[in-house]
Amino acid sequence: MNHDDLPSTGAWALAQRLQRRELRAETLVRACLERIAEREPLLQAFAVVDAEGALAQARVLDAGAVRGPLHGLPLGVKDLIDTADLPTAYGSPIYAGYRPRADAAVVALCREAGAIVLGKTVTTEFATYQPGPTRNPHNPGHTPGGSSSGSAAAVAAGMLPLALGTQTAGSVIRPAAFCGVVGFKPGFGRLPRGGVKSLAETLDTVGFFARGVADAALLAAVLTGDQRLMPGVDTAAPRLGLCPTPDWSLADADTRAAWAQALAVLAPQAAACADVVLPADFAALAPLQKSLMAHEAARALAWERQHHAARLSAPLQALLAEGLAISGAEQAGMRAQVQALRRPVDALFVNHDVLLAPSAPGCAPAGLQSTGDPVFCRPWSALGLPCVHLPFARGAGGLPLGLQLVGRDGDDHRLLAWAAWAMQRLAPGATVVPPAEY
Amino acid sequence: MNHDDLPSTGAWALAQRLQRRELRAETLVRACLERIAEREPLLQAFAVVDAEGALAQARVLDAGAVRGPLHGLPLGVKDLIDTADLPTAYGSPIYAGYRPRADAAVVALCREAGAIVLGKTVTTEFATYQPGPTRNPHNPGHTPGGSSSGSAAAVAAGMLPLALGTQTAGSVIRPAAFCGVVGFKPGFGRLPRGGVKSLAETLDTVGFFARGVADAALLAAVLTGDQRLMPGVDTAAPRLGLCPTPDWSLADADTRAAWAQALAVLAPQAAACADVVLPADFAALAPLQKSLMAHEAARALAWERQHHAARLSAPLQALLAEGLAISGAEQAGMRAQVQALRRPVDALFVNHDVLLAPSAPGCAPAGLQSTGDPVFCRPWSALGLPCVHLPFARGAGGLPLGLQLVGRDGDDHRLLAWAAWAMQRLAPGATVVPPAEY
Repeated sequence: MNHDDLPSTGAWALAQRLQRRELRAETLVRACLERIAEREPLLQAFAVVDAEGALAQARVLDAGAVRGPLHGLPLGVKDLIDTADLPTAYGSPIYAGYRPRADAAVVALCREAGAIVLGKTVTTEFATYQPGPTRNPHNPGHTPGGSSSGSAAAVAAGMLPLALGTQTAGSVIRPAAFCGVVGFKPGFGRLPRGGVKSLAETLDTVGFFARGVADAALLAAVLTGDQRLMPGVDTAAPRLGLCPTPDWSLADADTRAAWAQALAVLAPQAAACADVVLPADFAALAPLQKSLMAHEAARALAWERQHHAARLSAPLQALLAEGLAISGAEQAGMRAQVQALRRPVDALFVNHDVLLAPSAPGCAPAGLQSTGDPVFCRPWSALGLPCVHLPFARGAGGLPLGLQLVGRDGDDHRLLAWAAWAMQRLAPGATVVPPAEY
Repeated sequence: MNHDDLPSTGAWALAQRLQRRELRAETLVRACLERIAEREPLLQAFAVVDAEGALAQARVLDAGAVRGPLHGLPLGVKDLIDTADLPTAYGSPIYAGYRPRADAAVVALCREAGAIVLGKTVTTEFATYQPGPTRNPHNPGHTPGGSSSGSAAAVAAGMLPLALGTQTAGSVIRPAAFCGVVGFKPGFGRLPRGGVKSLAETLDTVGFFARGVADAALLAAVLTGDQRLMPGVDTAAPRLGLCPTPDWSLADADTRAAWAQALAVLAPQAAACADVVLPADFAALAPLQKSLMAHEAARALAWERQHHAARLSAPLQALLAEGLAISGAEQAGMRAQVQALRRPVDALFVNHDVLLAPSAPGCAPAGLQSTGDPVFCRPWSALGLPCVHLPFARGAGGLPLGLQLVGRDGDDHRLLAWAAWAMQRLAPGATVVPPAEY
C-alpha cells in the first residue's frame, strides 16, 4: 500500500485506517519521523522527539488489540504539559531537563485512547511572550505564532497529525491562524488542567491543533468523553452572527479580504446571517483579559519569581511586574466586569448559532522576535467561550489565514459541527492549507 | 517575656507581635515544635515535620528585616500541595517520597510574605475518601474530618496557627467543623491552583484553617493581594438569610441546638433575619456535585488509573469507576444545571447579605474509617461560593461544632467581615474552641 499521503492526511481518516488495520501504527510513526528528519532542522518545532519510544509504543499497539479511538495516532504535546517519560521544560531554562513524576491528565487520557506521544513541541517561555526557536512552515522568516508555536508548526508541516496546546490569551487560535491549521479552544473548564503548568488561573485552557475540523473533534470527544463531539454528525445550516469586534480597525487588508471571501461563500448558505450587536462594554474585554492575565501570572509564577528571577526573560519580568502592580481588589473588580458581560454575550446566541470573528490582525508577521498580537482572541478567552480557527485563505504574501467561529458556553459540540459545515464550503476537500514546500 | 500563650494565640495577634519584634520567629517555631512533640504521637496530623528547616528559616527571618505580613508565622501545608523542599505524597503510596520541582503558587506566596512551612499535613488519598491516620484532637476516637484532616487537627491542637487545605466537596468546612477551628473556602477561582494536585477541575478550591476569622482573613489578603480582606474592617450588621438547605432532615440534635443558639444570639442583632426561599432545583446541587466530582476525578487521575491502579484504595477505585460511567455529555448537562442555578442563587443576595447554613450533619463521627458526610458543603462547592465555618458550639458529647456563613460570588471580603461580626457575638473573646486537653 502506498502511504505517501500520510503527512497530509487528517487524524480522523488516519484513525479509520488504523482501526481497520489497513495502516500500521509503526508505518505512520515512521512517516512522521521521516517528515521530521526533512523539516525539523529548519522549523525547530520540537523541544524533544522521542523516536525510539514512539516506535516501541507503535509496535506494541500493532501487536495488540485496538486500544481506543486514537489507536496509533502520533501526538505532539506542548512542552508546557507534563509527560512522565519525556523532559518538560515549560519553555524556560529554569526547568531544563525536568522530568515530571506523572503525565498530565490530558496526556494520560490521549495515551489511554491509544495515542503515541511522538515528542514535546516548543512553547514560548511559560506560554507568555518570549518566543522559542520555531519558524513558520509557510515561510521560515515569519513567526509561527505563540505560545503553542511548535504544535501549530508541526501539524502544519505534516510532521504530526495532532498536537496539544494551551490558550490563555490567544495561544491556540493565533498560531493555528499563522500556520494554516485548525485550532480548537474548548470552553473553559471542559478539559482537565492537572499537570499543565499554570499561567493564569481563570484563563488557561487546553486546546489542540489538527488538519481538519473532524480531527479536532475526534480528540475533543476522547478528552471530554462527550460522544456528541465525534465527527460525522450532520448539522443544519447555522444562523451566522457577524462579529468583527470593536478591534476591527486593527484587521489588515488580508483579513478584510478573508472576511469578504467567507461572507460571499457562507452568507447565501447560512440559515441566517446578520450583524451582531455587541454589548457596549465589550471593547473592555481585551484590556481586561490582558490585566487579569498579568495579575494571575504574577501569582502563578511566584516560585519562579522568588528563586529564579534572573532566568526569566525581560518581557516576562515586565509582565510579572505589571501583574504585581495590580491589586487583588482591582482583580476582583475586573473579574466582576467580565462576569457582568457573560449574560449579554450569552444572549447573543438566542439569535445567532455561532459568531464569525477575526482570528488575528493578519497573516504571520515577519521575524521571530514576536509571536504576533492576540488582541482578537483576548475577549473570547476572557469569556471562556469555545473557539475554532478555520484555515481557508491566503494573504497577498502567500501566507495562510482564516477566521474563527465562536460558540455558546457549553455548545462545543455544535460549534465543531458548524465549523465542519463552514470548512466544507470555504475549502471543499481540503483538510489543511498545505505549506508551499508540500 | 512569657510565651505560654503561643499555642492558643491566633495568627493575626502573633503577626502583630512578630512585626513589632516582640516575638522572635524562632521562639514561635520552638513553641509549635514543643506542642508537636506532645500531641503529634497521638494525633498524627503531619505527613512530614521539618523542624530543622523551620528553625533555620526562623533564624534567617529573625536576623533580617520584616519580610511581609506573614513574617515568622509557622504554616502547615496539606500534603496535596507541592513543596520544593519537602516530600509531597498526595496521601497516596504512589507518590511516597516524591519531591516536586517547585513550590505550589500558594506556598510560594506565603513564603514570599514571610511564612515558615513547618510541615506537610495529612490528606486523605488524593483528597478523596480514604482516610489518613489523623485523629480528632478533641477525642482521638473520632475522625478529624477530611480531606484536609491534618491541617484542621494541627491548628485545633495548637501545633500550628495556620494551615492550607483544599475543598472539592467539603474538605475545608467539614474538618474545620469537626475540629472546632475557623475554615475559609474562598470563592472559586480566587486563588491560584498551580502545584495543587488536581482532583476535579471545576470544583477544587484552596482554602485554609485558622484559630479566628481575623487569622483566616490575614492569609486570604496575602494570597489574593486584596487588602479589603485584611482583618479589622468594621462592618455594619448583616441582613442574615437562614438557609438550613433541603438536606436539613440530616441535621442531628447537636446541629439543631447550635442552629437555635446562633439564632438566639444573632437574630436580635442582625440588620434583618429571614428565611431564604431557595430555588426549587437547589436540592439537585448536592447530587450534581457528587457526580461532577466523580466524572472529573476519573479524568484528573487518568495517569494514576493507568499506571498504578492496584495502589489506589478500593473506595477510590469505586469513585473512579462511578466517574468513568458518567459520559462527557452527561457532565456537560450537569454543568449546565449548576450554571442555571447560579442566577437564582445570586439573586438571594439582593435581600440577604450572608446565608447561615449547616456545616455538617453533626459533630465528628466516632471511628477513623470515615471522614464524615460533606452533604452540607456540596451545594456551595458546586456553586463556587465563598464559605466560612464558625466554630462556636459543642455537642452533647463535648465535641465542637458550628455553622457556616456563605457569601455572594466575589464578596469574600464582606463575608469575612460578617463572619468576624458573628463570631464576636457567638463566642466573644474566643479565637478557637480549645480541645479538652488544653
